[in-house]
Amino acid sequence: MPSRYATVSFLSDYGHADEFVGVVHSVIRTLAPEVRVVDLVHDLAPHDVRAASLALVRAVQYVAPGLVLAVVDPGVATARRALVVEVGDGEGAFVGPDNGLLAPAVALSGGASRAFELTNLEYQLAAPGPTFAGRDIFAPAAAHLCNGVDPAVLGPEVDPYGLLPGLIPLPRREDGVLVTEVLWIDRYGNCQLNAGPEEIADWGDRLSLGLGNDRVRTATLVRAYGDLAPGQVGLVVDAYGMLSIAFDRRNAADELGISVGGSVVLDVPA
Amino acid sequence: MPSRYATVSFLSDYGHADEFVGVVHSVIRTLAPEVRVVDLVHDLAPHDVRAASLALVRAVQYVAPGLVLAVVDPGVATARRALVVEVGDGEGAFVGPDNGLLAPAVALSGGASRAFELTNLEYQLAAPGPTFAGRDIFAPAAAHLCNGVDPAVLGPEVDPYGLLPGLIPLPRREDGVLVTEVLWIDRYGNCQLNAGPEEIADWGDRLSLGLGNDRVRTATLVRAYGDLAPGQVGLVVDAYGMLSIAFDRRNAADELGISVGGSVVLDVPA
Amino acid sequence: MPSRYATVSFLSDYGHADEFVGVVHSVIRTLAPEVRVVDLVHDLAPHDVRAASLALVRAVQYVAPGLVLAVVDPGVATARRALVVEVGDGEGAFVGPDNGLLAPAVALSGGASRAFELTNLEYQLAAPGPTFAGRDIFAPAAAHLCNGVDPAVLGPEVDPYGLLPGLIPLPRREDGVLVTEVLWIDRYGNCQLNAGPEEIADWGDRLSLGLGNDRVRTATLVRAYGDLAPGQVGLVVDAYGMLSIAFDRRNAADELGISVGGSVVLDVPA
Repeated sequence: MPSRYATVSFLSDYGHADEFVGVVHSVIRTLAPEVRVVDLVHDLAPHDVRAASLALVRAVQYVAPGLVLAVVDPGVATARRALVVEVGDGEGAFVGPDNGLLAPAVALSGGASRAFELTNLEYQLAAPGPTFAGRDIFAPAAAHLCNGVDPAVLGPEVDPYGLLPGLIPLPRREDGVLVTEVLWIDRYGNCQLNAGPEEIADWGDRLSLGLGNDRVRTATLVRAYGDLAPGQVGLVVDAYGMLSIAFDRRNAADELGISVGGSVVLDVPA
Repeated sequence: MPSRYATVSFLSDYGHADEFVGVVHSVIRTLAPEVRVVDLVHDLAPHDVRAASLALVRAVQYVAPGLVLAVVDPGVATARRALVVEVGDGEGAFVGPDNGLLAPAVALSGGASRAFELTNLEYQLAAPGPTFAGRDIFAPAAAHLCNGVDPAVLGPEVDPYGLLPGLIPLPRREDGVLVTEVLWIDRYGNCQLNAGPEEIADWGDRLSLGLGNDRVRTATLVRAYGDLAPGQVGLVVDAYGMLSIAFDRRNAADELGISVGGSVVLDVPA
Repeated sequence: MPSRYATVSFLSDYGHADEFVGVVHSVIRTLAPEVRVVDLVHDLAPHDVRAASLALVRAVQYVAPGLVLAVVDPGVATARRALVVEVGDGEGAFVGPDNGLLAPAVALSGGASRAFELTNLEYQLAAPGPTFAGRDIFAPAAAHLCNGVDPAVLGPEVDPYGLLPGLIPLPRREDGVLVTEVLWIDRYGNCQLNAGPEEIADWGDRLSLGLGNDRVRTATLVRAYGDLAPGQVGLVVDAYGMLSIAFDRRNAADELGISVGGSVVLDVPA
């Protein structure tokens, strides 16, 4: 049987304090020894399907050809479906729970061509309890698929257009202002908004940021963090083409009290 | 010399804030370039040999065929022995300090067939100070063993039954209740007890949990976290077949003030 | 084109909460599938070029033959140069920003033989914003160099002696005492000083540590952490040959209120 996928790109909320990530690697290494596993990220907030789906969206255009294994699965062992979703007629595949985690990245990858539910126990590990589907269901499925196993033997085909959607909020215009939402705060404290620079193309290079509770700050549009003076609030077009609130070498989220999901109102300064 | 082990499964308390894990990988990559290193877990609590031995016990049945490198070593450079322990007549091996870390996993792997103390300086890295045995003693030993070096050249043979035991506490029955101990709290806050469901087979699906200081909560036996109502305390049979105290998408350890090593008394509700 | 480097040893301040490290791995895996990436460390303090340069200095003599990719880059997208620096006539190479991060490790590796600025857009990824040079500039350069691409095609040659130096502080003698600086506090709380044991060769095995604000503690020179009694302050020659303030199984930095960059005055006890 010819090998089908050479790389598994693996994302989860398993963190690093426990051996969950290592055990998933171990299962894949045992079942598909030649496959390389690339860890995308595992320290996502526990159970945060939306944050995980956004991280996957940011990463997916860069992942190596092959299979994406994504496991943020608060509904493990309930009725939520475990799926493999093929994209590009099987050039790539996504394995994970059908809870909104996969759908946005699948769409960005050209949409699902086929999908199958992972129900065939012959391709799963027997376990004394059902709470670690990453180890018992998803990792074995990923390994077998890499080995060239036909996804159709893993379980029944399901509607490839029927994935639970992951909702990504859109910015909205309201009385001349742009109401945005904070999608992501990265390790450095940069706050990515759900709006690109085209939304404020004619607004000049100084904007007012409404941060809630009557807190308003003025931000300057700059190209690089290092273009900001100490303490100056910046708006940068980040590496994904989105507007991001930033300081130079300081944590904007901490300094400004910004949280993921919070709203930021962009306006021309008074 | 034929290669002997293709995979090193690596566990430590080195954490990720320093380059310790990376340097161990580097030493192995330099000495045994073809070997794949699988990181099991490194963010265990510093110096916590018991937590590490339990993580190894949970992981060991899933590790890829080969060698396990386990380093939690508060006694580094003292009289504690550095060992390689063969299991299954050399089909597998464990390398690490003899401080209780290895013994439970070795036992689970069928017991030691041979053991050798790592004393031969020719198979170690010279170092200006003795505090990083992972880099200087254990990683080179693991790499050389993978390369097919006979463990007998690494140092004198020692009694394979003489490993320092790692003690795993047993639950006990007392006046009709079951006194358990919290073995492990995972990233999600689920609290694994040292008792399986067979201990409470006839007790019904509602139990009382005595948490100390007269705190008592009622827990419901469920199959999945998602079967719990918001705020409801659950008992789940976890992925290792042990009872685990859990909430749905909330951190049971934080909510209930539970710590590793604490005692939980299971009883039929009044 | 023959492969040139088989291993990329990767250090950054990207942390593990985001997918930055995974995306860099993904880019390398896509462009140079056979290359192995060894993660040295990524949880360095954000933007802390000095801490990163010291970690690289500690690790560099152990890295596998090949290329070092080091990215701590607060000046991303400003005038700071992106470089590849060859050492040993191209036996090894360093890729990263020219901000003091690379220079000490390059010097330890025998000095730069050639250096080139990474300006050729054909060997970079196009991106909607310039803030993730690790993904768009450094990882592609590393991958192409591994593949055997001549560094001269990546951009103009620059003076190999012109790297921005990374300054490592020296201890100084002052009125019979030795004034040292804390270079590094590791995960265990051990505090590495910028002085080796040769600086205090005749001082006996008990020393006084001046910790600032009139706080003075007596420390005992020991070989191993485990040679210390509970609560006893120790000085150990660490795995890099430097003096390190330590406790047995306790966090010296926390117990003694020591911070990186702080000064510690060594003296003979009164």
